[in-house]
Formats: sequence, structure tokens, C-alpha cells
Amino acid sequence: MYKTLLSFILLSSLMLQASDILPSWNEGTSKKDIISYVSAVTDEKSKDFIPKKDRIAVFDNDGTLWSEQPAYFQLFFIMDRIKTLAPQHPEWKTKEPFASALKGDLKGALKNGMEGLMALVMATHAGMTDEAFDDIVIEWIKTAKHPTKNVHYSELVFQPMLELLDYLRANDFKTFIVSGGGIDFMRPFASEVYGIPSNQIVGSSIEVKYENKKITRLPKFRFNDDKAGKPVAIHYHIGKRPVAAFGNSDGDFDMMKYTEANEKYKTLQLYVHHTDEKREWAYDRKSHIGKFDKGLDYAKEHNWTIVDMKNDWKVVYPFELKK
Amino acid sequence: MYKTLLSFILLSSLMLQASDILPSWNEGTSKKDIISYVSAVTDEKSKDFIPKKDRIAVFDNDGTLWSEQPAYFQLFFIMDRIKTLAPQHPEWKTKEPFASALKGDLKGALKNGMEGLMALVMATHAGMTDEAFDDIVIEWIKTAKHPTKNVHYSELVFQPMLELLDYLRANDFKTFIVSGGGIDFMRPFASEVYGIPSNQIVGSSIEVKYENKKITRLPKFRFNDDKAGKPVAIHYHIGKRPVAAFGNSDGDFDMMKYTEANEKYKTLQLYVHHTDEKREWAYDRKSHIGKFDKGLDYAKEHNWTIVDMKNDWKVVYPFELKK
Repeated sequence: MYKTLLSFILLSSLMLQASDILPSWNEGTSKKDIISYVSAVTDEKSKDFIPKKDRIAVFDNDGTLWSEQPAYFQLFFIMDRIKTLAPQHPEWKTKEPFASALKGDLKGALKNGMEGLMALVMATHAGMTDEAFDDIVIEWIKTAKHPTKNVHYSELVFQPMLELLDYLRANDFKTFIVSGGGIDFMRPFASEVYGIPSNQIVGSSIEVKYENKKITRLPKFRFNDDKAGKPVAIHYHIGKRPVAAFGNSDGDFDMMKYTEANEKYKTLQLYVHHTDEKREWAYDRKSHIGKFDKGLDYAKEHNWTIVDMKNDWKVVYPFELKK
Repeated sequence: MYKTLLSFILLSSLMLQASDILPSWNEGTSKKDIISYVSAVTDEKSKDFIPKKDRIAVFDNDGTLWSEQPAYFQLFFIMDRIKTLAPQHPEWKTKEPFASALKGDLKGALKNGMEGLMALVMATHAGMTDEAFDDIVIEWIKTAKHPTKNVHYSELVFQPMLELLDYLRANDFKTFIVSGGGIDFMRPFASEVYGIPSNQIVGSSIEVKYENKKITRLPKFRFNDDKAGKPVAIHYHIGKRPVAAFGNSDGDFDMMKYTEANEKYKTLQLYVHHTDEKREWAYDRKSHIGKFDKGLDYAKEHNWTIVDMKNDWKVVYPFELKK
């Protein structure tokens, strides 16, 4: 009797588990890869077992955890801020890249490449305390809307990836964001949206100084958390090699190869491939944003998991669940 | 009957708690300050309640969590490494600061100040992968012994501070080290010794590069995590203002004032005052290492907690408990 009861409880719990894991993922190779990896490395009897303290999972943000089209969302933040600040800067009306930005002409504003971009970044990201900047970002994320999807930017996170983050944390992984985006742009809202504490959110940064009990943001670039910068940022912020890495573009390729080269533990590398032009966007090798070319070839050759967004995901965004 | 039972259980649990909290701390102002702070900010009904996500506690390391006399322990690591590496560098026999270091003459090795120190740091901390450096540190911490105490350096951590770290974590504080010491020198052993994960250990750093799937350490100084550098490091690594700060010297003063200036929450500032020349060392205003002068005046004026090591601590080191 006792044994029957026990079997029943175990069976129910297994069934519950199976139906609960990654509910927005269709059955298929991607879902199977994730579950079999997590099962192997969390099973104490497995040769692939990883102690909890070393279960480090790193996620790119733009294009991996939320959308990044038609331009990185931080660029829309910049354009919106330029408009808000324009009355204090009458000279912007005739001065590039501000003049183009004020007309909403992103392409024109960025036609001089990094130089124009940096001018826009510094005009909108520096000159205030860290806490004042937090408030600016929070206000924007609560009010601004995506130009074509017409919803708040924080609604454009990927439901299947939220489930993946939860699933990993439920299995005692520590989840980190390692993004080319601004560290201080992400932190004010990403903690709440993704359930990742601010100290586990890593990104590009500008210089700051401490004076009069305050941190003030300075108009000087400090660190580019992209490509080879990602493993460097992982070194400083995490201090150990990850075991699982999640990205969507060639910008994440170094971070993923760095993870793959973990000599101590079995690893998982997963690329989100943007294949869904209907629900999201479809782009890869030739895209200006989120270019996915070398990484795609390597991923195929090395049997990394490549998520086919169109076929692997039941829904893309959380709001689809409410329909 | 039910009520009596409930009272009994509550009473027992309170008594257990009181005797279990900070057992190596003598009853007195310091212990009372800590417990009343933690009780206030973790009580949901209190006006001082702090949500778990914002319970950020920052600790200096040298002189706060372990001893720092007669010199920072990382300096002994450097001196030991110079001796180990000497056979590969015959030129060191006649070249300063190496010649003095090889004779065990720390004062001579450092007589040119930062220049000599940096030469010693780079000769011992750069030129290998991050993982190789981890192994070097772990081997050293396992084998090297303190010149006068004749025990391993990791045995010279402060038992009352270990209890304080545990107590804070039991109350859902996230504990961080923010030290002038090397981030990569601390991480390989401090996680185990203090129960603090590597990503919550912050310190001074040298540059690194990513190449061929490896992080290599470069002979170039990057960040000095001391004085005004501490709030800056907190900004990048933690991303929010702490509510509790623990230090022992003027090097921690900025971090503690930054914490005190938290406008959202009640804060705690605690200074460890080295007053025990018998069990540890006694030093403050005039000490070359761990100078504690401006901070001491300010702490007294502003009613910060000042731990009198001699009178507040039943034991200093964990090994005293085993005697």
C-alpha cells in the first residue's frame, strides 16, 4: 500500500513536471536539448553533475530576451530623450546628429557611425546622478511605446525565454545578463522583468565619479560589452567560466565559445534564430542589427542548439497568452 | 491548551534565537546595534522595513573580515611568489625591487612606493590565464603561513564577522566584499571562507584580454577599489546603494558615507576598531596599514557602531573556539 502510494505521488509529480516545464515551447529538438542538459547536470549520480555554485548561465539581452527591431530599444530611448531635452538645447535644431534625431530620422542621426552615436549617448546618458538616471529610464519604460508593435517595450520580451530563465533558476542556476546594451539602462527595469538582480546584469558602461556622497555619470565611454568584451566582462563581474550561454548574434559568439571551452563541465550553447517574420521579425546573415552569420555556421557545425523561433515557440510575447 | 502550546513554542524559538545570534559577540552596544538594526529592517510592520531585494550589505576585507598586519596578506603572497619565480629571473638578484623582495625585505622592496609595488604586482599577477592564477592562489592559501601567527592566512579571519555575515544572510541580506585587495586574489578562496559567491566579491583589478577562448592577465593596472573607488565599484558591480557597510579604516570611509546617504532606507555603518594587541593587533590613527583617523572621528560624531575588538569579541579567530 505504502509503495503504491509512493509510486503514485512520484508519478504525479513527474507528470506535473513534464507538463509544467517550458510550456510555451513546442516539443522538438530545442526543448529536448534544454531539458536533457539540465537533467544531466543537476543529477548527482550523473557524470555530468555540476555543483550548484558553478551553475552559471549567461544571457545576451537584445534579440535573445527581448526584440531588437527595427533598432535596439535603447536607441528609441535615446531618440525620445533627445526630443524631451530639446527645449533646453535650441542649438540642436541645426546641429547634427541632433537635428536628424529631432526629426525622428534615426538613419540620418547615425550616418557618421560611432561618432554620432556617442554624441547622442552622452547627451542623454551623462550629466546626472545614477539615481536620477534610474528614474528617467523607469519613467520611459512605463510610458514609451514601440513604433510598430504599439506596446510598451517591456512587453516585447520573449515568453519562452522567461520560462527558460525560471526553469534554470528552479534548478539552482544563477542567471546573468551579459549584454552590449547599457548596464545602467537595463538595470532599472530588467530586474523586475526577468527576475535577475541588478548585480547579475552586466553591460556596456560610461565612466562615473564619486563626489559629495553621490555617483555622477560622466560623458566618457568606459567599456564595450560586445564580442570579445563579453568574456572580459564575465571575468570581472562573475569571476568564473559559465556552463550555459544564450545569444542570438555574432556579438555573442565569443561568449558562447568561451563557455563551450569550459574544461570542467558539460556546457550548453543556445542561439535564438529570428525566423518568424509574422509574429516577430526574420533576419540573420545580412541584418545590420543582430547579424547572425559566423555564429550560425559554427553553431550548425558544432551541434549547438538553434531555436527556430517560428516553429519552436508556441507564443513569442507574454501578451499573446492573454488573448 | 493550544494557546499555551503556541506560547511555549514561540518562547522557545525566541530564546533559541537570542542565544544563537552572534555567539562570539559579548553583550554590549555593538551587538545591540546590529541586532536592533536587523530586527527593524526585516520587520514588515516596521516603518524601517527594507524589501529583500534592497538588503545590500558591503564589507571591506583587509582588517574587517581578516587581519592585515604586519602587512596586507596579498603582499606576503607577492613576496612568496617572487621567491618561487626567482630561478626563472636571475636578473632579480641585483634588480630592485626584486632584490629586496628576495631577501624578505618588504620595506626595502616598497621604498619607491607605488612604482616598486606595481613592478612586484605585475611580475606575480600577470602573464597567465585567469584559471592558472586561481590555481596559484589556491595552492598558496593552502600552504603558506603567517610570519608571526604561524597559521594559514585563511585561519586569520574574524570569527565574530563570520557570524555577522551568516546572521545577515539568514535575514535575506545579500553580502558583498568591496575591498582594495585584488579581485582575483580574493575570489579563489574567499567564496569558501566567507560564503560569498565570486560575483559578489569586488576588488582592485588589472587588465585582461580575451583570445583563443581564454582570459589572459595583462601587466596593466585597471581599477583601484579604495577610497572614492569603492562607491564607484559598488555602482558597477551592484548597481544600487547599500543599506549596511562594514569597514575598519579611512579607505572605507567613502563607501560608508555613501551608504549612510541612502535616502530610501535606514542604514547601518560599523567600523571594526583594532584595539586588541594581545589577540590581534592594536592600531588606528598612526598606522601605515589600515589608518583609521578621519573615519574614527566621523564615526564617533555620527553615532556609527564602533566595534572595540578587545571588549566586544569573545574570540577573534575561529581556531580559538577549538581550544
